[in-house]
Amino acid sequence: MSPQSDRPDLLFPSEPSQRAIARELYALVRDRPLISPHGHVDPGMLADDVAFPDPARLIIVPDHYLTRMLLSQGVPPAELGVPSVDGEPVETDGRTIWRRFAGYWHLYRGTPSRLWLEETFANVFGVRTALSPATADEIYDAIAAQLAQPEFRPRALFERFNIETLATTESPLDDLGRHAKLAADGWGGPGGRVLTTFRPDNVVDMEFDGWAGNVEQLGQITGEDTGRYAGYLAALRKRREAFIAAGATSTDHGHPTALTLRLSEAEAATLYGRGLRGEATPEDAEAFRAHMLVEFAKMSIEDGLVMQLHPGAVRNHNRWLYARHGRDVGGDIPQATEYLHALTPLLDAYGNDPRLRLVVYTLDEYTFTRELAPLAGGYAALYLGAPWWFLDSPEVLRRFREAVTETAGFYNTAGFVDDTRAFCSIPVRHDVSRRIDAGFLARLVAEDRLPLDEAAETIVDLAYHLPKKVFKIGSSIK
Amino acid sequence: MSPQSDRPDLLFPSEPSQRAIARELYALVRDRPLISPHGHVDPGMLADDVAFPDPARLIIVPDHYLTRMLLSQGVPPAELGVPSVDGEPVETDGRTIWRRFAGYWHLYRGTPSRLWLEETFANVFGVRTALSPATADEIYDAIAAQLAQPEFRPRALFERFNIETLATTESPLDDLGRHAKLAADGWGGPGGRVLTTFRPDNVVDMEFDGWAGNVEQLGQITGEDTGRYAGYLAALRKRREAFIAAGATSTDHGHPTALTLRLSEAEAATLYGRGLRGEATPEDAEAFRAHMLVEFAKMSIEDGLVMQLHPGAVRNHNRWLYARHGRDVGGDIPQATEYLHALTPLLDAYGNDPRLRLVVYTLDEYTFTRELAPLAGGYAALYLGAPWWFLDSPEVLRRFREAVTETAGFYNTAGFVDDTRAFCSIPVRHDVSRRIDAGFLARLVAEDRLPLDEAAETIVDLAYHLPKKVFKIGSSIK
Amino acid sequence: MSPQSDRPDLLFPSEPSQRAIARELYALVRDRPLISPHGHVDPGMLADDVAFPDPARLIIVPDHYLTRMLLSQGVPPAELGVPSVDGEPVETDGRTIWRRFAGYWHLYRGTPSRLWLEETFANVFGVRTALSPATADEIYDAIAAQLAQPEFRPRALFERFNIETLATTESPLDDLGRHAKLAADGWGGPGGRVLTTFRPDNVVDMEFDGWAGNVEQLGQITGEDTGRYAGYLAALRKRREAFIAAGATSTDHGHPTALTLRLSEAEAATLYGRGLRGEATPEDAEAFRAHMLVEFAKMSIEDGLVMQLHPGAVRNHNRWLYARHGRDVGGDIPQATEYLHALTPLLDAYGNDPRLRLVVYTLDEYTFTRELAPLAGGYAALYLGAPWWFLDSPEVLRRFREAVTETAGFYNTAGFVDDTRAFCSIPVRHDVSRRIDAGFLARLVAEDRLPLDEAAETIVDLAYHLPKKVFKIGSSIK
Repeated sequence: MSPQSDRPDLLFPSEPSQRAIARELYALVRDRPLISPHGHVDPGMLADDVAFPDPARLIIVPDHYLTRMLLSQGVPPAELGVPSVDGEPVETDGRTIWRRFAGYWHLYRGTPSRLWLEETFANVFGVRTALSPATADEIYDAIAAQLAQPEFRPRALFERFNIETLATTESPLDDLGRHAKLAADGWGGPGGRVLTTFRPDNVVDMEFDGWAGNVEQLGQITGEDTGRYAGYLAALRKRREAFIAAGATSTDHGHPTALTLRLSEAEAATLYGRGLRGEATPEDAEAFRAHMLVEFAKMSIEDGLVMQLHPGAVRNHNRWLYARHGRDVGGDIPQATEYLHALTPLLDAYGNDPRLRLVVYTLDEYTFTRELAPLAGGYAALYLGAPWWFLDSPEVLRRFREAVTETAGFYNTAGFVDDTRAFCSIPVRHDVSRRIDAGFLARLVAEDRLPLDEAAETIVDLAYHLPKKVFKIGSSIK
Repeated sequence: MSPQSDRPDLLFPSEPSQRAIARELYALVRDRPLISPHGHVDPGMLADDVAFPDPARLIIVPDHYLTRMLLSQGVPPAELGVPSVDGEPVETDGRTIWRRFAGYWHLYRGTPSRLWLEETFANVFGVRTALSPATADEIYDAIAAQLAQPEFRPRALFERFNIETLATTESPLDDLGRHAKLAADGWGGPGGRVLTTFRPDNVVDMEFDGWAGNVEQLGQITGEDTGRYAGYLAALRKRREAFIAAGATSTDHGHPTALTLRLSEAEAATLYGRGLRGEATPEDAEAFRAHMLVEFAKMSIEDGLVMQLHPGAVRNHNRWLYARHGRDVGGDIPQATEYLHALTPLLDAYGNDPRLRLVVYTLDEYTFTRELAPLAGGYAALYLGAPWWFLDSPEVLRRFREAVTETAGFYNTAGFVDDTRAFCSIPVRHDVSRRIDAGFLARLVAEDRLPLDEAAETIVDLAYHLPKKVFKIGSSIK
Repeated sequence: MSPQSDRPDLLFPSEPSQRAIARELYALVRDRPLISPHGHVDPGMLADDVAFPDPARLIIVPDHYLTRMLLSQGVPPAELGVPSVDGEPVETDGRTIWRRFAGYWHLYRGTPSRLWLEETFANVFGVRTALSPATADEIYDAIAAQLAQPEFRPRALFERFNIETLATTESPLDDLGRHAKLAADGWGGPGGRVLTTFRPDNVVDMEFDGWAGNVEQLGQITGEDTGRYAGYLAALRKRREAFIAAGATSTDHGHPTALTLRLSEAEAATLYGRGLRGEATPEDAEAFRAHMLVEFAKMSIEDGLVMQLHPGAVRNHNRWLYARHGRDVGGDIPQATEYLHALTPLLDAYGNDPRLRLVVYTLDEYTFTRELAPLAGGYAALYLGAPWWFLDSPEVLRRFREAVTETAGFYNTAGFVDDTRAFCSIPVRHDVSRRIDAGFLARLVAEDRLPLDEAAETIVDLAYHLPKKVFKIGSSIK
């Protein structure tokens, strides 16, 4: 698939000399396979390969970028079919949801959501009609008709999207059965097309609902005594091995802050016991999370898994939304995130060890030049993850390059990560990133700061070689 | 008046394709009436409609943007005629002040003050000569001559400026007599041309000079017993009703931080009592201010007044200046402002209630993408106010759009607010905002991110419909 | 020397109308003499005027911008010849270091280091071959051959570089012998080509290794009793006089934060005594540093030395690097820096006194519009130093102008400062600054915000007159 053929100059600088260079650079990566080393696609979707539901349930209902914008204008998520946790009835008719959404299309002007949807409509479903209340039904019907065709099954789309590797994200409590099915079908396993990622938050974060029960379950799965801290560590190691066997090349850690801490084994065991007895304070929970990041860095050096850190989200800030609709529906908000002092204990321990690869993300762009670029440009273990979530947008992707390149260069960044659960939006998200990088490099060339041949090599590295290398995709992780 | 006819491409991007689109978009709003929902023009000026004083007293003396720049280069405000509070003599000759100022004109290169003055000279007074020591007298005389003409009286200018609605800002202790006069003349009252705004800082902030006396006066005005907290709340409600009757559609709150807090009535009453007895600590004062913001949000839901919050200024930071010349003469400096945790209590209480409309401003642009855009894009009650004060400038107006649009869209912003006491600068301030929005939208169009017809609709919304809607201008506020 | 003749449009905006104006403005400053009022060139190099060592030792080994980038990709500094403090052997062969470095040249794409090196090769050494493993030897040999020639001795280069004034930086413990030699040769002394700068950190910061010994030595040098606080102050005053006699026009203060504090003499003496007895806590050390900044401001008013403050670096953050290679080898990282409240005590005391000139730098660009520009635009004593260290790059130089000009104008900034120990990079660093200013001013002109004649005057001021004036170069400092 050659995406965006309708809008060949989408997102390129309009100044003609820069645009000409951007086109030339973009042409080098437009058709490169997609490397998606981190995201939240449901592996069951690809394991079972069943048809997608109706357009509203596929595209609107699960996309909290979309539903939160309507909430911000007073439209309750229930009217868009977002499932409730309290039994409150929600809209269930796909077409009604779709029509309702179309009435608010102007709200998305200038947002990446708008761009992602338009390009998904055009390039995935061949729908080039502009969305409006008048065209809502026509577009709904066109997409619904396509979704019924076998070439719109997940695996067929995966191939059409030219995805080379896609990593999903699972808890250590996941039995990895869906990944086993994928491996059996020739789609998963080490070096396969679909990989898993080890995300242990629900057994690490004592403030996670049901943590103690999760930890107990972790013990049952692994046959380790997670009633003791040593058994807990052993259980985590065992699950990491199981994830590696299922194809994982990386871990992921979503924490409120970037705090790291080196506790003695005795101190860690004490905190752990307090957690199990339900006596942990918020400070205990934070200290334990911080300590475990250093433990996980140590494990990464041992077993080779690349480590990812996603700090800075205040989860469920919108309490009304959380009470009615639960987690991950748009109620999280970023907070100021300090990296320098927070990461010091981990960096003191392993920051100069090239065997560790720690990819750090941020929701706080006001750390780009002050902390993140200097750290990534000065520690062997540290890489900068692509702008994430609220920052995964054309303007910020551009500002990211403008801010971090001068101190960290291109090669201490980790390549684009779509980080999405919206499977159909994966091509456009990567395409946007490639276009922005083409535009940024075009400016360097146009301002005589980089020769064209080096810009050409760089854009291919950024789009393809760098994420494969940093995330150890397609190679042995050890 | 068609402003800027001498500089048709002022502030537009110079890249020809963007400039052509910007011209086209700007043409749609150039002559739209001005909506000024928040500012500090003296209502007496319009009520009495007397001629302005000399050019220096009109333009230089009261403009702290101008006098602080000269102070920063060692020129004391007394030399520019800024009144002293300690009896120290200050320059009183308008022409001398004007000449002195002209000698430092180069200091303002690249500043919005320079732009505002040039366009005021050209479009209000028809003076197109460049200011310099050599031309200072000529310009002074030309402006002075105009000011003597009846068509340069405030009301005549108001009409020439094409202002549809202008809100001034008054304390609850104001008797609203000037607004009564305006209403009697067909210029004020609900739905009128000149509205008031309820700004209760001097009866809310215990650290305000004379707070206890102000509160006592509030009781006298309303006939409520402000010796008790319940009477204080009742008095505030009465004054809000009086302001609504005088045309107010909004309140305004200028606080050092964005902190909000929900105290029980008993706790609030205790703090209040401590304040009255002069025993309140700075922490008490901060808690009481924070609590009152939540109280005011509740009142806004009841009476329909739109709520504005202007946090983040450290007032009278320059103590020498404060001691000699008092408040509001250029000695305030912004401080880092946290919104996410600070607003949580208010948002928990009323953030998802579309009946509340809370317009939040900032002096700290390093919160745009991290806190403000995610909050405005996720809470029904929250709108982002235009860049304010130190940030009310072409570059920041542009960065504001670049930063917040991707997460909050255009329709969670509240439209331009000039926030000025410099009456003659109102047209150019709005014009600058319209030009910057035209340039920003032109880039989106030129980069194929937004069709021209939607950009055209958007710019008219931003310049006209959106501020009217958000601030309930021209409609019933309930 | 006309730098960059090979790349006439380097760093200029590519939009043709802006580029044409930028060329015109740049032509006005391209050949202006360089004013370098702050940097770390070794004065002995110029005093002795001996030939430089081999290319690797001249260019790579001492440049921590270069070696930290390789460390960030897992190449230990020892392999690049960075001296060790622990006796660990390091690479000593210049050619081997050079070849090794050439193999990682792609890491520097988009960095200022790349630009500085390319322009140094081309304009200082006439080498226009692109660096690569294949060309490494050729370039090494070409540069080595040049370095053997008398016209590549330091003083000859100083003249070829068209440097008018260069300030080095010395501790009060320095005997200023090298500057005496320079003065004797007609190169130094008051008003001379090479000046010194008074940098007292190692006798002010109790956390500095060997502080107590340094203070004792300060007493011996000056004949004052530095066992007492009063004697310590007297000794500092004496050394300042000696520095002034050697040509100094400024002081420099490198502190972890911008904190200032006014202690009574008794309080300061108590802290001082605690420091001498080795009993000072980190809080004591911070308080003493903060207090001394106010003391130094007072001394500056007395003796006329311009005061520079460089806050915000966490020194030796990379502890592994510090343990093996010591200070100033790339292990420092910026931290968030607060200015508003930190500077309040100093500004309260002397902020409105035009006799004080305090140039403040930052490593935290997220203070530009919020704190630094408002402070510089509102206090007579305050000037903004050029973007520094991690921020001394084309993109940040541009963002600095875009951010601070609107509030502080051009004339509250202090002019470009190269702040480098890499002597051969001085011309290109100033050239980059002049080009970025030309581009910024060209945009103002192209957007009709500033007439060309005023832009022309401004760029000459920024490049030449302003740093001379702010730093009192070429004039009496009193």
